[in-house]
Amino acid sequence: MQKKTSKLKVIPLGGLQEIGKNIIVFEYEDDIMVVDCGLAFPDDDMLGIDLVIPDTTYLEKNLDKIRGIVLTHGHEDHIGALPYVLHTINVPVYGTRLTLGILNNKLEEHGLQNKVQAVTVKDGETIKLGCFSIEFIHVNHSIPDSVSLAIKTPVGVVVVTGDFKVDLTPISGEMINLTRFGEYGNNGVLLLMCESTNIERQGSTPSERKVKNSLHAIFQNHANKRIEIATFSSNVHRIQSIISTAAEFKRKVAITGRSMLNIIGVAIELGYLQIPKDVLIDINEIKKYNPEQIAIITTGSQGEPMSALYKMAFSDHEKVSLGPEDVVVISAHPIAGNEKLVGRIINELSKKGVHVLHDAVAELHASGHACQEELKLIHGLVKPKFFVPMHGEQRHLKAHAELAKYMGMKSENILIPDIGKIIELDENSMKFNGTVPSGKVLVDGAGVGDVGNIVLRDRRHLAQDGLIVVVAAIDIDNATLISGPDIVSRGFVYVRESEELMEQTRTTARDAVNYCFDNDMCEWNEIKTKVRDELSKFLYQKTKRKPMILPIIMDV
Amino acid sequence: MQKKTSKLKVIPLGGLQEIGKNIIVFEYEDDIMVVDCGLAFPDDDMLGIDLVIPDTTYLEKNLDKIRGIVLTHGHEDHIGALPYVLHTINVPVYGTRLTLGILNNKLEEHGLQNKVQAVTVKDGETIKLGCFSIEFIHVNHSIPDSVSLAIKTPVGVVVVTGDFKVDLTPISGEMINLTRFGEYGNNGVLLLMCESTNIERQGSTPSERKVKNSLHAIFQNHANKRIEIATFSSNVHRIQSIISTAAEFKRKVAITGRSMLNIIGVAIELGYLQIPKDVLIDINEIKKYNPEQIAIITTGSQGEPMSALYKMAFSDHEKVSLGPEDVVVISAHPIAGNEKLVGRIINELSKKGVHVLHDAVAELHASGHACQEELKLIHGLVKPKFFVPMHGEQRHLKAHAELAKYMGMKSENILIPDIGKIIELDENSMKFNGTVPSGKVLVDGAGVGDVGNIVLRDRRHLAQDGLIVVVAAIDIDNATLISGPDIVSRGFVYVRESEELMEQTRTTARDAVNYCFDNDMCEWNEIKTKVRDELSKFLYQKTKRKPMILPIIMDV
Repeated sequence: MQKKTSKLKVIPLGGLQEIGKNIIVFEYEDDIMVVDCGLAFPDDDMLGIDLVIPDTTYLEKNLDKIRGIVLTHGHEDHIGALPYVLHTINVPVYGTRLTLGILNNKLEEHGLQNKVQAVTVKDGETIKLGCFSIEFIHVNHSIPDSVSLAIKTPVGVVVVTGDFKVDLTPISGEMINLTRFGEYGNNGVLLLMCESTNIERQGSTPSERKVKNSLHAIFQNHANKRIEIATFSSNVHRIQSIISTAAEFKRKVAITGRSMLNIIGVAIELGYLQIPKDVLIDINEIKKYNPEQIAIITTGSQGEPMSALYKMAFSDHEKVSLGPEDVVVISAHPIAGNEKLVGRIINELSKKGVHVLHDAVAELHASGHACQEELKLIHGLVKPKFFVPMHGEQRHLKAHAELAKYMGMKSENILIPDIGKIIELDENSMKFNGTVPSGKVLVDGAGVGDVGNIVLRDRRHLAQDGLIVVVAAIDIDNATLISGPDIVSRGFVYVRESEELMEQTRTTARDAVNYCFDNDMCEWNEIKTKVRDELSKFLYQKTKRKPMILPIIMDV
Repeated sequence: MQKKTSKLKVIPLGGLQEIGKNIIVFEYEDDIMVVDCGLAFPDDDMLGIDLVIPDTTYLEKNLDKIRGIVLTHGHEDHIGALPYVLHTINVPVYGTRLTLGILNNKLEEHGLQNKVQAVTVKDGETIKLGCFSIEFIHVNHSIPDSVSLAIKTPVGVVVVTGDFKVDLTPISGEMINLTRFGEYGNNGVLLLMCESTNIERQGSTPSERKVKNSLHAIFQNHANKRIEIATFSSNVHRIQSIISTAAEFKRKVAITGRSMLNIIGVAIELGYLQIPKDVLIDINEIKKYNPEQIAIITTGSQGEPMSALYKMAFSDHEKVSLGPEDVVVISAHPIAGNEKLVGRIINELSKKGVHVLHDAVAELHASGHACQEELKLIHGLVKPKFFVPMHGEQRHLKAHAELAKYMGMKSENILIPDIGKIIELDENSMKFNGTVPSGKVLVDGAGVGDVGNIVLRDRRHLAQDGLIVVVAAIDIDNATLISGPDIVSRGFVYVRESEELMEQTRTTARDAVNYCFDNDMCEWNEIKTKVRDELSKFLYQKTKRKPMILPIIMDV
């Protein structure tokens, strides 16, 4: 084999300068391996968009080089784009048992079951993908079976943390395998790529055990009420805590919410949840019990409209109606942007007389991401030569670079990465060298990538001030109006109470068309432009609004 | 005068089950007085709306009874609707000096200067409005000259706190006049109406002095850099701290941002800001100084697009360009919903190499609202017979009712109010009795109230999936298509890459029209409905989207 290059290329295609859609490409000569393939949720200005996936053009162009995709854990922002990407890039996928169990659910929804080669790997194991060998290292996170990766490459070892925290008292399983990080550190690590989510938080993330203790206290203090607990469906540890605590207090547990049922199903099947005998009941059975005999686990901890908790709050849930004998526990922290949604649910529940316990008034959530002291611990153990902060916006990446410097790393050994920028490494150097295509592919309904900036710009325009359609039929050869102009508006003003404005708008449009005829402006486009300009001017002067104006002039 | 009733009516027209647009009506027989008249900012789903004001139909109908509007302080959510409401309800307005100074700025913008009778009142003073006499009691808040009101009515004293905190070490002026609250308490208070903003926060709000200390440390630690500080323009205390600290460190201070210039202008003119000699310079002069000689006070602490800080971050500010020799201090806490906007500015600044200090990493803000211990203090001093929690959503009002009970108030003496609901009081009883019209009036551009639910529903529909216009000219008598159908789309798909879909859409529309002709469905409306239904079905099946479909069928 001819040596084309002796450099390792590390190319993040997502997860930087943004939150979500994490994916990193590693390339050495003829071998490519990919770490994770996540989705992101749309920004507020991406109107009508369902989700965002990474631009994987670079991978499509190098399809024959790709040896596989390695997953760190089963969260949407690390695996959620796979059902879309595997359509065009069908390569083997490697992950731990729970991660692949959750992925499999998704593949089924997309009709891809049995069409993808998924290989289960255990932490401690090492796999070989071309010139790379990858060891899976156990870490703690808000979903079980999370791993960091130690990737042995021809130029040295790269440690990719994925998402992690240090939990010394986890609900189940072991604490993070710090020893293995330390052994790699002692043997020499070329590059550390470490997550940055909680870089702005001092100290250490509380243990999941602490939340279990809070839940225990809630069951104790509300012995006479029914208890509904909303949390992330993928937080299997939390769900374990709820079920164990409920069982301890002799309560039955019912589950509601599609993703909750899905993930709990997978987790039970694969042995990630220990369910005491006769504790789980079907949601249809809850009416057979008194309130104090029941606990319900539900989706909706982020206030999502259409979630089970949302439906309960707005009296729209088929099986559960809430009132003064209920205590609702929101065991989650609202993700930035969701505060108002969560607030709306709390208000509705309060109106029903439900007692609501949430993050702002009790310790009901523990983050799954390392805070500053935990990050320092990893830097101290891994002692890398080079450092690249991962997963975060510029503010987080830069703060993480500062932390690395505080730990003794030289400035010149740190790069603040961006998506699409190629990081080139050998044993002694790390630098940027070139770019590959990267960006956001928008998913809207069944369409993947058919909505871009022009469509979004129009949606924003329509959302802001609505629409005016001007319809006229003209005989262009004889320069006469045959019919119209008529005005149709949507989202502009309440027409029934604005008849005069609508009539003036019509007059303005007619004058504009006649002006064109009188002045020999008989090009179809000239007429349209004149009508649009005159209406635009008129309406802004009258209303200080700028609706989209669509002149539809038919030559008949 | 005939006695029509011996009850006091208290009617909040805003500020409950919502944040903002605070306004309370007090009515006894033939006298009405109004406390505050604020605006609210639109919810996320009020697309294109600029601001929201209260429905004041009830006041318009009782215009002859209104003796005046009394203001507690100069924030938008307490005075912002006045320029709109005074157009129809031009009654005398009473407030402290700074409050009226800020109001006057607004009235000028709306061309109402000298058209409103504004009466300046000092704290400690009492005014008479019909049968009511109102004492202004000094309180601390994030704007100077804030007052609570003790309203003597024929049935007893009502204390309305307005917004307040207890600041034992204020930047200027006195601490809150707790003694006066206590004296009223000792003499007997019928009803306490107390704000609930920070009811979910334990302990006490930090003093504004603490922020001043943080600012001092920043000036000390960044002696070689230029310092830009963003804060709320109305937080005159904070601005005083910044100017005093800058002067202490021998820096000149420049100001940027329209509302900052406005309010600082009023505050200086009225003597609410003490400016050391030769400290303030014009923003045009900053280039004459070295970075370490300058501090800049700017708007944009909530990440507002078009604010001065936003422009600096995106290299769009005419006078200030930022880089590695700048330290930007965001001296504010993002209001719920603004986290992402503020984050975007922090990221842009970080990319420029600017060192950014914000709320998440340093103590740079103190709330202006009382936390639990301060609220207890007021309850304990005022010892009211009845209690109505004010200013907040259901969750806050309910938590505040719990706090009142914890302080010894009986459940039956508390009402959780809602806008438009009449609270009726006499010496011995308080109950709900009837409602008056209330709600949200939407302001969009020059239009006040001309955008309602139908227009908003259309805007949301257009925003979600865009628009398809189908245009056809038909001869309805001969049941023939003369021209078209043509398809125009906006905000739906990127048309150039969806030619086939567009062609199929056209065919579907043509088939629908012809179906109508073939089946003798020659009513104009029948044809439109058929076209809309068929296209809707077709497009959903193809794209899983539901654009707005506008069939425009011309009979020519």
